[in-house]
Amino acid sequence: MPETKSFHMSPEEFRRQGHAVVDWIADYQKRIETFPVLSQVQPGEIRSKVPSDAPEEGEAFEKILGDIDRIILPGITHWQSPNFFAYFPANASGPAILGDLLSSGLGVQGMLWSTSPACTELETRVLDWLVPALGLPNNFLSTGKGGGVIQDTASNATLVALLAARERATKFASNKQGCTGRLIAYCSTQTHSSMEKAAKIAGIGSDNLRHIEVDENFAMRPEALSRQIEADAAAGLLPFMVCATVGTTSSLAIDPTLEIARVCRDNHIWLHVDAAMSGTAALCPEFRFVHDGVEFADSYCFNPHKWMFTNFDCNCFYVADRRHLIETLTVLPEYLRNRATESGAVIDYRDWHIPLGRRFRALKLWFVLRHYGLEGLRHHIREHVRLAQEFASWVRGDRRFEIAAPCRLNLICFRMRASDSVNHRLMENLNRSGDLFLTHTKLDGKFTLRLCVGQTNTQAQHVERAWQRIQEGAAKLGIS
Amino acid sequence: MPETKSFHMSPEEFRRQGHAVVDWIADYQKRIETFPVLSQVQPGEIRSKVPSDAPEEGEAFEKILGDIDRIILPGITHWQSPNFFAYFPANASGPAILGDLLSSGLGVQGMLWSTSPACTELETRVLDWLVPALGLPNNFLSTGKGGGVIQDTASNATLVALLAARERATKFASNKQGCTGRLIAYCSTQTHSSMEKAAKIAGIGSDNLRHIEVDENFAMRPEALSRQIEADAAAGLLPFMVCATVGTTSSLAIDPTLEIARVCRDNHIWLHVDAAMSGTAALCPEFRFVHDGVEFADSYCFNPHKWMFTNFDCNCFYVADRRHLIETLTVLPEYLRNRATESGAVIDYRDWHIPLGRRFRALKLWFVLRHYGLEGLRHHIREHVRLAQEFASWVRGDRRFEIAAPCRLNLICFRMRASDSVNHRLMENLNRSGDLFLTHTKLDGKFTLRLCVGQTNTQAQHVERAWQRIQEGAAKLGIS
Repeated sequence: MPETKSFHMSPEEFRRQGHAVVDWIADYQKRIETFPVLSQVQPGEIRSKVPSDAPEEGEAFEKILGDIDRIILPGITHWQSPNFFAYFPANASGPAILGDLLSSGLGVQGMLWSTSPACTELETRVLDWLVPALGLPNNFLSTGKGGGVIQDTASNATLVALLAARERATKFASNKQGCTGRLIAYCSTQTHSSMEKAAKIAGIGSDNLRHIEVDENFAMRPEALSRQIEADAAAGLLPFMVCATVGTTSSLAIDPTLEIARVCRDNHIWLHVDAAMSGTAALCPEFRFVHDGVEFADSYCFNPHKWMFTNFDCNCFYVADRRHLIETLTVLPEYLRNRATESGAVIDYRDWHIPLGRRFRALKLWFVLRHYGLEGLRHHIREHVRLAQEFASWVRGDRRFEIAAPCRLNLICFRMRASDSVNHRLMENLNRSGDLFLTHTKLDGKFTLRLCVGQTNTQAQHVERAWQRIQEGAAKLGIS
Repeated sequence: MPETKSFHMSPEEFRRQGHAVVDWIADYQKRIETFPVLSQVQPGEIRSKVPSDAPEEGEAFEKILGDIDRIILPGITHWQSPNFFAYFPANASGPAILGDLLSSGLGVQGMLWSTSPACTELETRVLDWLVPALGLPNNFLSTGKGGGVIQDTASNATLVALLAARERATKFASNKQGCTGRLIAYCSTQTHSSMEKAAKIAGIGSDNLRHIEVDENFAMRPEALSRQIEADAAAGLLPFMVCATVGTTSSLAIDPTLEIARVCRDNHIWLHVDAAMSGTAALCPEFRFVHDGVEFADSYCFNPHKWMFTNFDCNCFYVADRRHLIETLTVLPEYLRNRATESGAVIDYRDWHIPLGRRFRALKLWFVLRHYGLEGLRHHIREHVRLAQEFASWVRGDRRFEIAAPCRLNLICFRMRASDSVNHRLMENLNRSGDLFLTHTKLDGKFTLRLCVGQTNTQAQHVERAWQRIQEGAAKLGIS
């Protein structure tokens, strides 16, 4: 039989080029500190290097891979650099990358149990692993009424929690008849913007999201929450959901979940706890305070793709009672019907989130947990917190600077005792140097620098150098 | 300086283990036809092989990788097998897997232009490439008022289109004050279930989604749509969006976009066109009829992760006027503010979809387009269509069988001239054999088999064998 004409990459060619790509990444890891952390290109610069039309004929893989260095690298902000202190980290690690590679290679869809049972069952198991590992309550276990699922991001976890809360509050009337503008949700002035986005998406409306005031530590005031709920109920509105954050994006402030939970219980309101960044810290018993009160939450999430060395995207989302979630999101057209689903003996994760298709993301999480073991993860979390606390002590010891918020974990909010514009200039100068990358927020109305120690490979020397550069930067600006 | 204790995988260890994983995938590709296509495990079987607790101490990577064969493979339904004819394909390919691997290795976040300019600019460029390549209208180009973005799935593309439509219709009042239950959306009885899910999520309500009747080819009847819109408007309701499908999930039916567009224009209604599966066919001029009328759509999507050899997730979503989309989804908290965003000279894709974080997915799409070239892609699309048409001719030539819907592309809907239960049994027997995997739908109330020719590596011999097995299966059931 004559060979059929094919443009596909053969397994042997894949083996050869795959080794080359792995080598490229290993080399990238070794030389990552030689690049400016923040990309220095101007708008349009990368675009102008890419031809304006798709190629009519295929190109050699060597040429394509070569363009990563030539075209792409200058436009990369190096999130995997140990000198990346900006935002929150988005960590990769060897075992995560390789677990994800296997997921691409297997290329299965996990929308139904039957479309790849391993994709569903490994996910259920590994999400159950994390419950005791993080000191989460047993009612999140899949072996009871609850369960966990991997979402792409905390944004979607928040949205899905809000939807389940909406349907519980309206007895599934919103799903059928639409929203009525009477539902009210609550968060703090410090809650992540994804909560406002979710309120808009879900037909609640941003006017119906109350931003509750915070205390001097930027944590939600439960008594203010309680008063607002009372006022809304008295006005004939329907309070249905509170989002508590343990570890806000601005300053890693920790809302008092336990007291908020009491308010929610008294008013039959769904409590969602967002621990996107700080949840990982709970692997260490001494940091488990972040989960105080989570035993009363209806839903909870954290992001292994932030601080737990599992590359994006991987958000772990738990519910205490999975029925509400599933009933909110279920659809079952004829073309998805199958014997296993109808038996009721299996989980079909398509009903736990918005997309239908789903990638085998549990593999990378499984690889990370097995490669590091809980012991290895704890070691690196503790190191990051220790280094951040050391950095805070240096800031406190320098009279030109001040600490702007409590630092209990790995984020330090600080500023020079100078104007907003001087602080802004300091940040821009540091970032333009390429030596490190950090970002800002506003606290108490003042421009504040954020330094987050959490990148996979950040060690003492990187934090020390960052502090040295910051001091030099202050001196150059004439701050004494 | 003493070496710091570390549990991380070093670059050299990553190189070694990365080669092992690449080899595993290359070998998997070579032996994939030796596995039963549909996993044969029972519920709980995979789960029971995974320990019930996370390991306290790290494990050797060799052991972890070994468990892919031992634990995972029996629970895999092989979507990458050339004998996979079920659902729609979810194709991987060598260049896609390697582009995705680089995305994991670079590990950047593309939420803002500034967080990795290459991630945004390559995406914009490659999405622009596809506009002429697919014969899409120029108003989808980013160089005008429109533009494209990669979403995870068509489910999310539909949701985002619905949200932008909702806000255009209510002048952004829904975003602020929530929905009112007066908005009405339209699709056909054959539209994908994600449209109903989107209507629920967005606070529209499933009762306010009208399922318009279809003609004998399972395509939406534009005159029925027009009548329903008129009736709703007369009742004081607000028709705001129509979803037209070119290539339904059940039977690849093609809604008459041009006539639907006329109805939408007359009533100031947003038209979204879902070409998730069949959009890829438009790479070939002779199949470009699927895009007739798309020049009048407000939004459009198709999935390279279905038939264009780009591994999941990769949905290309276009809008004719990006302002509505951006204004609907934008949020800009202080901690995301930056000079480039404020200059207005850049795209920040976080405002084009629901999640904030985003992976560098353009790399895999770029790799696929460059590896195959448009010529290579067209070759394989044509081959798949040719093989599907050949299969249809065999079905037509066998008096025991009948074709159940028009087959213009690569999906054949057919059944034995026998009862539903006999057809169901035929399917279950075929799938249980492990030799091939196909799924079903209902058309005209009857159980119907679907055979989709679209898996990356499916060739003549696989389709021939599938037909042989189907004939044998029919004979065993005593159908003559």
